[in-house]
Formats: sequence, structure tokens, C-alpha cells
Amino acid sequence: MNKLQSSEAQIDHIIDLALAEDISHGDVTSAALIPAKLQGKASILIKAEGILAGGEVARKVFLRVDPSLKVKVLIKDGARIKSGDIAATITGTVISIFKAERVVLNLLSRLSGIASETAQYITKTQGLNVKITDTRKTTPGLRLLEKYAVSIGGGQNHRFHLGDGILIKDNHLVALRALGMSLKDIIAKAKQNAPQGLKVEVEVDTPQEAREAAAAGADIIMLDNMSPDEMRHVTGLIPGRVKIEASGGITLANVQAVAETGVDLISIGALTHSVKAMDISLELEPQTLKIP
Amino acid sequence: MNKLQSSEAQIDHIIDLALAEDISHGDVTSAALIPAKLQGKASILIKAEGILAGGEVARKVFLRVDPSLKVKVLIKDGARIKSGDIAATITGTVISIFKAERVVLNLLSRLSGIASETAQYITKTQGLNVKITDTRKTTPGLRLLEKYAVSIGGGQNHRFHLGDGILIKDNHLVALRALGMSLKDIIAKAKQNAPQGLKVEVEVDTPQEAREAAAAGADIIMLDNMSPDEMRHVTGLIPGRVKIEASGGITLANVQAVAETGVDLISIGALTHSVKAMDISLELEPQTLKIP
Amino acid sequence: MNKLQSSEAQIDHIIDLALAEDISHGDVTSAALIPAKLQGKASILIKAEGILAGGEVARKVFLRVDPSLKVKVLIKDGARIKSGDIAATITGTVISIFKAERVVLNLLSRLSGIASETAQYITKTQGLNVKITDTRKTTPGLRLLEKYAVSIGGGQNHRFHLGDGILIKDNHLVALRALGMSLKDIIAKAKQNAPQGLKVEVEVDTPQEAREAAAAGADIIMLDNMSPDEMRHVTGLIPGRVKIEASGGITLANVQAVAETGVDLISIGALTHSVKAMDISLELEPQTLKIP
Amino acid sequence: MNKLQSSEAQIDHIIDLALAEDISHGDVTSAALIPAKLQGKASILIKAEGILAGGEVARKVFLRVDPSLKVKVLIKDGARIKSGDIAATITGTVISIFKAERVVLNLLSRLSGIASETAQYITKTQGLNVKITDTRKTTPGLRLLEKYAVSIGGGQNHRFHLGDGILIKDNHLVALRALGMSLKDIIAKAKQNAPQGLKVEVEVDTPQEAREAAAAGADIIMLDNMSPDEMRHVTGLIPGRVKIEASGGITLANVQAVAETGVDLISIGALTHSVKAMDISLELEPQTLKIP
Amino acid sequence: MNKLQSSEAQIDHIIDLALAEDISHGDVTSAALIPAKLQGKASILIKAEGILAGGEVARKVFLRVDPSLKVKVLIKDGARIKSGDIAATITGTVISIFKAERVVLNLLSRLSGIASETAQYITKTQGLNVKITDTRKTTPGLRLLEKYAVSIGGGQNHRFHLGDGILIKDNHLVALRALGMSLKDIIAKAKQNAPQGLKVEVEVDTPQEAREAAAAGADIIMLDNMSPDEMRHVTGLIPGRVKIEASGGITLANVQAVAETGVDLISIGALTHSVKAMDISLELEPQTLKIP
Amino acid sequence: MNKLQSSEAQIDHIIDLALAEDISHGDVTSAALIPAKLQGKASILIKAEGILAGGEVARKVFLRVDPSLKVKVLIKDGARIKSGDIAATITGTVISIFKAERVVLNLLSRLSGIASETAQYITKTQGLNVKITDTRKTTPGLRLLEKYAVSIGGGQNHRFHLGDGILIKDNHLVALRALGMSLKDIIAKAKQNAPQGLKVEVEVDTPQEAREAAAAGADIIMLDNMSPDEMRHVTGLIPGRVKIEASGGITLANVQAVAETGVDLISIGALTHSVKAMDISLELEPQTLKIP
Repeated sequence: MNKLQSSEAQIDHIIDLALAEDISHGDVTSAALIPAKLQGKASILIKAEGILAGGEVARKVFLRVDPSLKVKVLIKDGARIKSGDIAATITGTVISIFKAERVVLNLLSRLSGIASETAQYITKTQGLNVKITDTRKTTPGLRLLEKYAVSIGGGQNHRFHLGDGILIKDNHLVALRALGMSLKDIIAKAKQNAPQGLKVEVEVDTPQEAREAAAAGADIIMLDNMSPDEMRHVTGLIPGRVKIEASGGITLANVQAVAETGVDLISIGALTHSVKAMDISLELEPQTLKIP
Repeated sequence: MNKLQSSEAQIDHIIDLALAEDISHGDVTSAALIPAKLQGKASILIKAEGILAGGEVARKVFLRVDPSLKVKVLIKDGARIKSGDIAATITGTVISIFKAERVVLNLLSRLSGIASETAQYITKTQGLNVKITDTRKTTPGLRLLEKYAVSIGGGQNHRFHLGDGILIKDNHLVALRALGMSLKDIIAKAKQNAPQGLKVEVEVDTPQEAREAAAAGADIIMLDNMSPDEMRHVTGLIPGRVKIEASGGITLANVQAVAETGVDLISIGALTHSVKAMDISLELEPQTLKIP
Repeated sequence: MNKLQSSEAQIDHIIDLALAEDISHGDVTSAALIPAKLQGKASILIKAEGILAGGEVARKVFLRVDPSLKVKVLIKDGARIKSGDIAATITGTVISIFKAERVVLNLLSRLSGIASETAQYITKTQGLNVKITDTRKTTPGLRLLEKYAVSIGGGQNHRFHLGDGILIKDNHLVALRALGMSLKDIIAKAKQNAPQGLKVEVEVDTPQEAREAAAAGADIIMLDNMSPDEMRHVTGLIPGRVKIEASGGITLANVQAVAETGVDLISIGALTHSVKAMDISLELEPQTLKIP
Repeated sequence: MNKLQSSEAQIDHIIDLALAEDISHGDVTSAALIPAKLQGKASILIKAEGILAGGEVARKVFLRVDPSLKVKVLIKDGARIKSGDIAATITGTVISIFKAERVVLNLLSRLSGIASETAQYITKTQGLNVKITDTRKTTPGLRLLEKYAVSIGGGQNHRFHLGDGILIKDNHLVALRALGMSLKDIIAKAKQNAPQGLKVEVEVDTPQEAREAAAAGADIIMLDNMSPDEMRHVTGLIPGRVKIEASGGITLANVQAVAETGVDLISIGALTHSVKAMDISLELEPQTLKIP
Repeated sequence: MNKLQSSEAQIDHIIDLALAEDISHGDVTSAALIPAKLQGKASILIKAEGILAGGEVARKVFLRVDPSLKVKVLIKDGARIKSGDIAATITGTVISIFKAERVVLNLLSRLSGIASETAQYITKTQGLNVKITDTRKTTPGLRLLEKYAVSIGGGQNHRFHLGDGILIKDNHLVALRALGMSLKDIIAKAKQNAPQGLKVEVEVDTPQEAREAAAAGADIIMLDNMSPDEMRHVTGLIPGRVKIEASGGITLANVQAVAETGVDLISIGALTHSVKAMDISLELEPQTLKIP
Repeated sequence: MNKLQSSEAQIDHIIDLALAEDISHGDVTSAALIPAKLQGKASILIKAEGILAGGEVARKVFLRVDPSLKVKVLIKDGARIKSGDIAATITGTVISIFKAERVVLNLLSRLSGIASETAQYITKTQGLNVKITDTRKTTPGLRLLEKYAVSIGGGQNHRFHLGDGILIKDNHLVALRALGMSLKDIIAKAKQNAPQGLKVEVEVDTPQEAREAAAAGADIIMLDNMSPDEMRHVTGLIPGRVKIEASGGITLANVQAVAETGVDLISIGALTHSVKAMDISLELEPQTLKIP
């Protein structure tokens, strides 16, 4: 889980929040029905095709609920999976397994959904010299995990925080132009004031603006909602040391066309804001059950 | 926001988490470019059709970032919205507005996406005596808000926590049958041990099991992944005082057919696990800008 | 501790709060006097009669203060105890044992006090088909643990949260009657709007209201502060499928008389709001002390 | 609330914990029945005799749930109250009042119970030059509020934390004697090592030990479980500059006899470990209800 | 306080932590002596020369302790101050002022110490085209505030987090050279893998390495512990588009010499790791005291 | 680490805060460059002379980031160290070691700086019967650790909290004299109202006030900013049972002269408010690196 850029403490916090939300005062169904000492084994069963992400997170959830559970993660994050695969097995007290089940599946199916969708974009642009990146359009509270899932799917991580990069967006330009500044002035000021270590990126709407931005010294130029033809026009105009990012309205249907325009980066908000969860379930294995 | 079942403190916590994640050490772009005293007005612009959810949550985010902002929520949660509508306006320090922007939009577009999708299911089943409900397949950390959005879209809220209802699912049955109990025994034990105030619901796979469950005294019977024909068979068999819930594989394409089988409830995990965010943006109004 | 319906994380949180409150900047007495390396063994000594509750919680407190302590819990929660019993022994660094002592005893004596009191009500109603339940009148912050102690003493857990059941109380009736609704209207509306899975309970003051409530379809009827004679009158009137709960003013002196009226449930706020702590102490064993 | 020794932030934390525990996902009964816009007024009704404590805490709970509620605290903490008194009124949205109700009453009835019990000990010892103090035997999480209630009832606050005073208890003596130290050695070491500003108190079991402790320079001597006769013997022996504290087994029945022995302080764990909640309720006033 | 790059919620958290640590169970001295209703006015008195930082943070501390205090901040952050200046006045309940005093002064004297020290470096390098920056060598928990103070003193903020910039340090080079990579390989790999928006900085020990790093495409080169002569050698070698950062062993005594070598940035850990607190006190104004 | 007066839980909290602040979304440099599986060994290298403090805290940070790291602490807290010493070694995944590095060094260099500075004061006053103590002028959030470091350096810990001792300071006297009380009245009231177990300390500006304070029964007298001659005058006047504390303006240059005046305690705010961090680094050992 080394691509998961955080300390154990942060992941613990997210897991605790999810558990608190789900089991607060316990599992009344299990309490009413399942013998407290019943031991057994369950499997995490994959029911769709894609890329697994979250196996180690799932392990942590089970252990957070009950440190005595034994969790074997059988498939590594990033592996291609198909219906019928067993991602992990869990052995121990059955009511503990049931307590963790929903939080595990909610995380695993969401992260695997993101990784799988990302991987499809990667496949569509294979052989083209372009990177697929996420955005800050993530689910509140889950950014670290969602960006991890994008990286597992083969994508790049764009800014984590507002503080991670200079990105002059449409609203900044609106404000600064209202104060009488030109695009050139704005980029010059950004380069002057940017914290050391951060490049200056600017969002533009037209090829003409892209040219001005490059001339003013922008490190990266984001083309907002341009057509592939306009993008190709821009990549022809701009010197190679300036990176070009395509953004807005990019789907699996048009990503290849966009990639072929020669842009360096394609950022896709839907990777994290409109996720389709992967179908994954937990299956108890009846023949393993016993009361010791 | 009275349908949002929680205290102010809980919502504050969710908002703080989202802000910490997004702006931790601030907005370096605005810091580099935008005059600290610049005042202005921005609008929350709707760019798609659907149902708004989250207007008051958005207000809270803005005020949490900067209590001196003035936020006018112009459209109430639950109202039908279309591209071009202004959901709210915000007046005050521009860099405060920019700090809050992404968290506001991430919440608003997600909640409105959920409410809008729910409303489509409601429309498809109009006139039929059936309720559309969510599940516990929510995003970790956002359950309260996501279930609120479902209710705004016209849906019902199923269990919030594992402790909110007796729901005997497939894995419980696997465990208990392995211990030699029949469906009848299981339901009897659940009724005996259920906390007062909670009904007993059981998941079944066949009409025959549904009949047994009803005979054994189940209050609600969940039909898992049955065809509409099987469902209609079950609703014909079971006396009216027992509620029937359809679950599994239900989409906008087949929800009407399912509803017409006479089931009482239709639960749909995708309402919250596979959300399509609504397209919403924040637009600064240049003519309002001034440095006092 | 499987009856303790929560995750490890939640119990950890309660323990951390208690420790922070008690030892914030440490034990100045031990720091001034006790050699840092002194090792020894201490016992948790029971000094009264009753039912033990909290043994595993105590273990967690010791380990939270110092993971190197060895804790043996000798008596299981739910066991009958008497003066002179040793509930647990702790071996390790003496100043760690002293740091944990007060929090351990405060929890253990409170939880055992609750379990013991509950058990007395159970004894008084033995052989009668009635359940003793707690209420939401718990100590702020300790609800999970206090309800656990009630269950250990043989009681049932009533609602954990306001969201766990429909309970139409006196103030709801006051409000709704002021709006012109009859008891029948109110119960009908509750049944219509109740989340799936929750029964509808209503509080009544007279046998006449009880009859109306039953006729209107209430699942459970709470008799508030009725005399045993009135209760018996009600249980004679109401069909068996409707549960009857007695509430208000019930003590060890009258609980048997109440139980004999045929009510199904007796709820007792004093189980948790007016607890008598059990006398329990920690005793260091001098012959075990050594500085390695 | 100036006797409540803490910052607003700390009290907010306790209140948030209690609310999270009680209303997590809301009040389903009110949601099902009470119109969201219904406005009205409710009273906090006292139903027993004693001393009020917690009025301002109650106000904070109401405002934490809904800042738009209007709360008038009519009786100050420390005032003598009787059945029928109205401690406060609350005006605003009815469902907000209902959400806060249980947490308010749980806190108010507990704190008033503690203040009332303390006041009875004060009354019993009136005219005698003795102080009634609490102990560290408080409910985990509520120490600040419970000690506040003791002070409201006229008692003194003993140590808040393990770090607040040197108190050499039985277990310390056991450990140190096993290492070969005499009582005199132990007290000398404590005086040498005590942080500046802290007095040295020692627990003794016999008048002989009390004399030794005084000779060794103890500032305060705690007599553990002595009879009044023994206590009187000690107070006769010990010079006035050394304070004498009686502890263990003191009740309303014997506190006067103990006080008359001439001890300076009487500490009573039961003030906080075995509280009897005061009977207090919230009553909605039907004639005030309206939907604006 | 717009340079303070964070939300209100984050600052609140830091303040709460400091208050919890300082006043946990209150101010026993004030409780013993100061009438609870005593009102008055106090001043924040500057007793040294430098730059003020933290005025608005101080205001927040006072209001967090008691929202009814009136705080007037008389001097803006960044202003030059001298002994005898009054930075702010506070009016209200005296015991509230005393509760907040130490936390206010601890923050204010620390932040002003940092700003003042930073300003001295700025003065020493005035007229030279160089920026003074901080490092990640901040006090745990206070990074946001300490970096804010550096910016107030005229410095630049270097990386906030490990995730804010690519900085290839000595230990990275040790690891990668052990794997057989050359400096050129390392920089190429960093440029390939760096998140979009981040420049690549590398630490070098010799002019020769600096030249290699520039040739390999490093955006910024950090000269570790070089003499001014070596630095001048490097700045002569390296093309202007590559930024040069001096680091290690830089003090007020040598900063001008370093700046004159033509480096672009000078980073100084001591700005935050070895702070000299400014002498600032709170003075109650006796003539303003009254009990209303 | 037994002098570190707190539970494990509290230290964990401080560490988590520091880690969250430093690595939030990870170490982009290591992610870009260092193979995830690279294993190796690193040393904590001391680069200055002094006293080590924080070795066990450092261990905890490493384990919090990655529980699989092996940490050997080679030098105990309190030991004298010199440039070239190895305080600890860490073996395991290299990127985990790098993630923890900055937080470890920030804590260790700060705590060792405090311990070393304290030790210098101790050395200067060796053979004189005086204690060196810290104050409440600590860094917000780090009080426990900073006071621990003072104790490791040989100093005494003064009050931790405002609630830990009665200390009548200048502002208290200003307030109370404005109300017409004399020094004698004030001390008498403090003695009357002080919680049991706390001594009464008073700050005075002149020998005359010191005499009055002693006559009025103060337990400790703090001489604020007096010259050594004045201090000697006071110590000659005051009976031995009253402790004398020197405070204000004491440095390594004058501490011996102050100590020789016969005062009992010398308190020094600069020990914690103006710390000079010790130079300590982490060095990766290249020959230990391997990819298993």
C-alpha cells in the first residue's frame, strides 16, 4: 500500500469514522441470532471485471473491528480481477466479520470502481504520450483513498490541496481582469509570488489565450472544454517545454481523440465525482463454521 | 434542513473534515494573486436538470471558512432545477469565497446528483403504491448527508446503522442453517430476541422461502434478485400485513415493472454507491468587485 | 465482550477521554515516590455482592496506559460475585498500574453497579413472562457501556438513539393534538411515515387511550405511571399481538406487582440514571514487588 | 457559570459527545409526525426538591442543536428549587427542542442530583468548621461538570487530576514499605520531590500512624475508615497547622458525628459515584404552538 | 489574517488544544480570589522591539474562552513595534481575561519572535534579489502559524508538507546511488514521475554536482553548506532559468555575504526551530475595574 | 520514559497531529524516486554536545508511521551526548523511514535542546541548594513533552495547568488592591479558599512586600525581577519554612549569582519559550540497502 500517501494514523481515522457511522451501537441482527463464539471463514468475492484497489484498507477495517481476526489478502492492489475471484479471506469470530462487512465492501467497491474506470482511460490512450490525471472533485473525507485508487488504476494525481499548486482558473482571471490586469500581467505576478517549487498553470478558453499564456511564461496551460481540433491547434503553437492539459467534458468515448491531439495531460473529474461501485460481496463459508 | 437528521455539531464535523482535506495550508494561487481585501459577489450556477439538495450545507461551508461572508440560498432543497438557475449568491472577501468553492461544489453536486437520481425513480413509479428506499451502501463518512439527499429526492431512508433494524441476510442464514436451524426457527429466534421497537425482516431467494418466512411471522420479506414474475407470484401469496421489499439489480429501466408487481418497497444501492455528480459551478461576478 | 455492541475504536475513545481527564499531566505522587522500574502484581478486589460487568473494559484501560502490563481477567462479565473475590490481576510496572487504577475502578464499579441492580429486577420478576429494559436516561458519554451493563445484568436494551424507534411520547401528543389531530390520526400518520423496520410505540395515560391506540394499529403501547390495577385492566383489553410496556415509578418494591399484571416490558430509567457504584478496590501485593 | 472551571471549548466537547450519542441520525418520531416549521414554547419543569445545577449547560445544549432557539434560564445554579418550579423556557422550532430534550434532562437531572445531595451534607454540618469535599470517583468524561455540581451544592473540590496533589495512599505505602522505607522516610521523600506548590497528604489507618505522619511533616493527614472516636483521638493529638481529612464510609447518617470530631475535611466519594438523578421534565406548552 | 492560509476551523483546533493544555480544570487562583462578576480592561503590552504577528489569533483565543469579551486589536500583524506599544485591549470579565492570558502570550510572543527574526534577515538582504524562506523544521502542531509568522516578517514559505514539492535530498541520493543511478538518472526519473505542477529541486554538495544537476534539467538546485565562494562559483555556472537555493549554516552574520553571491533563495531552519520569544505581557488597568 | 507524565494515548495524539501536519498526502519525492520495497538501515546522528531527550518519543513516531520498522534506541534520555554519537538505528522500508524523518528530528532536536539548556543551568548551580524550574511559557500543544525534557535535563516542573497551584501574580494583586484589599487580606483569602493540597504562592516586587507576604502566611514567595542584592536581603528576612522563588531575567550569566542568594527555586521561562534546537540528523547507510 506504499502508493497510499499517508501515515497509518490517517487511514485509521477514516476507518474509525466509517465504522462509527455504520455500527455505532452494534449489529442487532447478529446479536439476536448469531452465537457469540461462532467461528468461521468468509471470502471477499469479486463479481465484476476490473482492477482491485483497497485490499490492505479492507484488512485494516477487519482488524480495527476485531484484532483477533485473521485476514489473508490474496490479490494485490492493481491486479486485474474478474467475476469469481477471491480477493481475500477472513477467519475468526463470525459476528466480528459481520460487523466489518458493510464498511469493507463500501470502501473496496468504491476504490476498485475508481481504479477500474481509470484503467479504462489508460487503455484507451495506450501508446500515446499522455497522462491521465484526477482532480480535486473528490468525495469529502475520502480524497486520500480516492486518489490512491486513481494511481492504482494507472492515473496520475493532480493537486491534493489548494496549496499544492498554482492553478489560475477562470474565476481568478475574472477577478484580476476586473482589476485591469492582462493575462500577461497575471502570469508574471503568479511567477513572482509562487512558492518555490510550484509551477504556474493557467486555464484558457481559446488558442489565442494559450499562445499568450505560453509567451508570458506559464509552465502548464489548461485547455478548458476545447474541441480536439482546437487542442491540436494549440499543441502545434506552443513550445514543447510548456505542458498542455486538456480538461472538461472528456469521456471514454472521446479520450483517444483528445490524446491524439498531442496534449500532455488529460484531467477527468468524473474519475472521482461520478464513481460506479464495483460489485463485490462477502460470502460466509458454511462448512468452516464451528463453536469451539 | 429539518429532514437532515442530525445536530449542527455533526454537520460541522463533516464540513471541517472536508475543509481540512482541501485547504490544509491554504490556497496558494489566491495568495499569490488576489488582493486580500478584494470584495465581490459570486453565484452558484446550476448547469444541468434535476433536484437541488445541499443548499444549507453549502451555506454552512462558506460560513465555516469565513463567518463574515453573506450567503443567500435562493432555491430550497427539493426544488426542481434546470441549467442556468442560480442556487445561491455569496458576497464578501473573494479569497474566502475561493477557499470554500471546491468543498461547496463537491458536496452540492454530489447531494444534488443523489436527489435527482432518486427523483427519477420516484417519477417512474408514480401512482403505484410503493416506496423507493436507499441502503447502507453509502460513501464512508457521508451517510447522513447522502441519506438526507435521498429523502429530498422523495425516497425513504432504510437502516442508518447496523443497529437500526433486524435484517436477516443471506450470510446470517448460511451461518444459522449450518447450525441446523430452519428458516422458521431463525425467524422465531429473531422475534424473541429483537429489541423492542424493531420489526424482523428476512432476505429470501425463492417464492417458497418467502411463504415460509411469512408463515414464521416475518414482518418484512426482502426478495433478493427475483424476476418481476417471481415477485408477482410472491405478492399474490403473502398476506397484506407482511411488507415485501424488492432488492438487487433494479434500475431505471426495470423499476416500473418491479413496482407493478405489488411490492411495498424497492431498495436501490446505486442511489448512493454509484452517484453521478450534478454539474454545478461557482461564478464570480466581475462587475461586483471592489477593494474598499 | 460480544454483548458490547460497538467497535474497538469506540471503546478506545471513551477510555482515552477518561484517562485524559484523570491523569493529564501524570501522577505526581508516584513520580515523587515510586521507583520507575518497580515491578509488581495487583489485584482487583470485590468488596460487595452482585454481578460483575466491565472486566474486559478494565483490561483495555490498563493496556491503553501501558501495553506492557499483563492483565488476567479471572471472572467473566455476568458472573455473580461476592466480597473477597478477585476479578483480575495485573502484573508489571507499578507506576503504570497506579496511573490506570482510578479510571479502571470508576468504570468497573459503575458498570457492576448497573448490572447488579438490573439483576435484582430480573430476580424479582423471575418466572413471569416480562422483560426489564433500560431507557435513554443514561450518563452522557457512557451510553454504550451502561447499556452493555444492563444487558449483562439480564435486562433488554431499549432505544439507543432517538433514531432507533418510533416512540410517540406525551410531548408529541401535546403538539399534535394542538394541531387538531386525534390519537387515531397520529398513529396512522406514524405508521405511514415510519422508516421501514421500525414499530410504532405510543405512550398513553389511561386505559381508554390504550384501547384507542391498539385499535389505531400501534405496535407497542407504553402505560405511563399507571397503577397495577389500571395496567391489569389494559392487558385484559388489548389483543396479544400488541405489546404493552409499563413505565414510570417502578422500583424493586413494586416491580413484581407490575410484572404480574401481564405487561410485556417494564422500562426503568433508574437502572442508569441513579446508579449505586459497587465497592471495588485495587490492592498491590507487597510480596511480589521487585526492582529488576 | 464562573464556578465551572473550564473553557467554553471543553464544555462544547462534552455536549457534542452526548448529542452524537443520542441523536446520531436524528429523531425519527418527530420526523414522522411533527411539522418541520412548527414553533412553540416548552418549560423545564422541576418535580422534586433540592438545588439546581446545570442551567447554563442546558442552554448550551439547546443552542448547539439549533442556534435559533431562544432559551431563558429562570433559576440560577445554586438556588433552592421545589416541585413545580420552572427552571427555564425554550422557544422556537419544536423538533429542535425535542432533539435536545433528552441530553438536556440527562445532564440537568444528574448535576442537580449531585448539588442537592452535597447540600444535604452541608446542612448536616452547618456551624461546624469543616469542609465537605468530593473525590476522583467521578463518572468518566463528566468530571468537570460533576465537580462543578459539587461546588454549586456548597462542597469543595478535591484533586481534579492525579497531577493535582501529592496524596500518598495505601497502595503507595504498601509498595514503599516493601522496599524498606518507614512512614517517616516516605513523607520526607515526598516533601523533597513534590512539585513546588503542592502540599503532601498521607492516608493513615491508625491514630499512631497519624502521629508519625504529623511528626514527619505531612501537611494533610487522611484518616481512612476510622470511627468517630478514633478521629477525635487524632484531632486531639495533632497540631492545628496540620489538616485532618476524614474519608471512607461517611453518609448523611454519620456525617455530623464525624464533623464534630474536629476534622478539617470530609471527603465523600458517593457524591459523584452513586448519584440519584433529580426528577426533571420538559413540558411543551400547547397554547403556544403555531406554524408560521 | 488573510496570509494565514487555513480555515477558521483549523485555527480553532490549535487554540482548543492550547487551552485544554493550560486551563483544563480552571484557574484555581482566580477562583479563590477574584469576584466572578468583576469587570475590567487589560492591555497587551509590548516590551521589546520587532514585528508583531498573531494579533488576530490572540483575539480568537480570548473569544474562545469567553465570547462576551470585547477585544480591540490596535496594531496590525506586520507592523513594526517597540517597547511600550499596546497591541490590543480586552474588556470584560476579569477571570475570563486571566484564563486566556497565558495561551495568548505564548502564541503572540512566539509568532512575533519569528516575524521579528525573519525581518532582520530581510533587512540584511535588502536591495539584493533574493528571497528568505523557512523550512519544514517547525514546531510540531504549529506549522501553519509559524509559517504565517515567517510570511508576516517578509519571508517566503517553503514546503508545508512532504507532498508539496519534489526535493531530492542527501538521503535520497544515497539510496539511489546505492542502486546504481547517476545524478542525471535520478533527476530524469524525478521529472518523469513528479506530479504535474511541481518543480524538481535537488540538493548538491559541490559546484560540479550543481552543474550536473542543471544539465540534467533540475528546476531548483539547493547548495548544502557551501561557502560563499563556492556559491558564487555555482551562480556563475548555472543558467538563469534554474533557481539556486542556499541552505545550511546561514545566520544574521553571514546572510548578506550569501545573498551577494547571487543565489535566488536562502532557506533558514532556525527561523522556526530556534525561536526567541518576544517579551510581551498582559496588564490589567486598575482604574477600569468594577463589579456591576 | 517514566518521567513523561502521561498515558500512551496522549503521546499518540501529539504524534498524530505532527504527522498529519507534515505528511498529509505523502512524500511525493520518495514516491517519485524510491522503490517501494527498498529496505535499509538509518541512524539518528548527533551533531552537537548536550543531553539527549526524546528517544522513546522518536521510536513511537517511526512505529506510528509504519509498525513494521525496527527501532533500536541506543542512548537513554538524560545521557550526555556529543557530536558523532548514534542515538538510535532504524531498519525497514526506506520510504517509511523518510516519511517519519522530519517529525522525528523536529521533536528530538527540540526536546534535546531543552534538556541541554536546562542541564547548563543545573551545572552552573551545582552544590547550591536550589532547584531550577520551568514555567507555563511552553509551546502550545507541546507542554507535556517540553516539561518532560526539562525534567530530563535535571530541572523541576512548575505548574502544568492554571489549576495546579495557587500563584497570586501581579495582575491578581492589581485587581484585588483596586477592590481595597491589602496584601495580607489577599493571602488570607487565598489560604481560606485554596483547594486542599495546594500551597499559596505570591509574587512580590520588593523586600518589604516579601516580609508582609511571609507574615500573612504565604507558603512560597516569588521575587519578580529583583537584583541578587535584594534577593539576599529577602532570604535573610524570611523564615526557612517559607520557600523563596526567583523569577524574571535570569540567564546562564547570572544564575549562579542568583542561586548564591539562598533562594530555594529559580524559574526560567526561556527554558521552553526560547529553545535552541540541537543539531541532529538522520543518515541512511548505503551499504545496508537492498530490494528483497
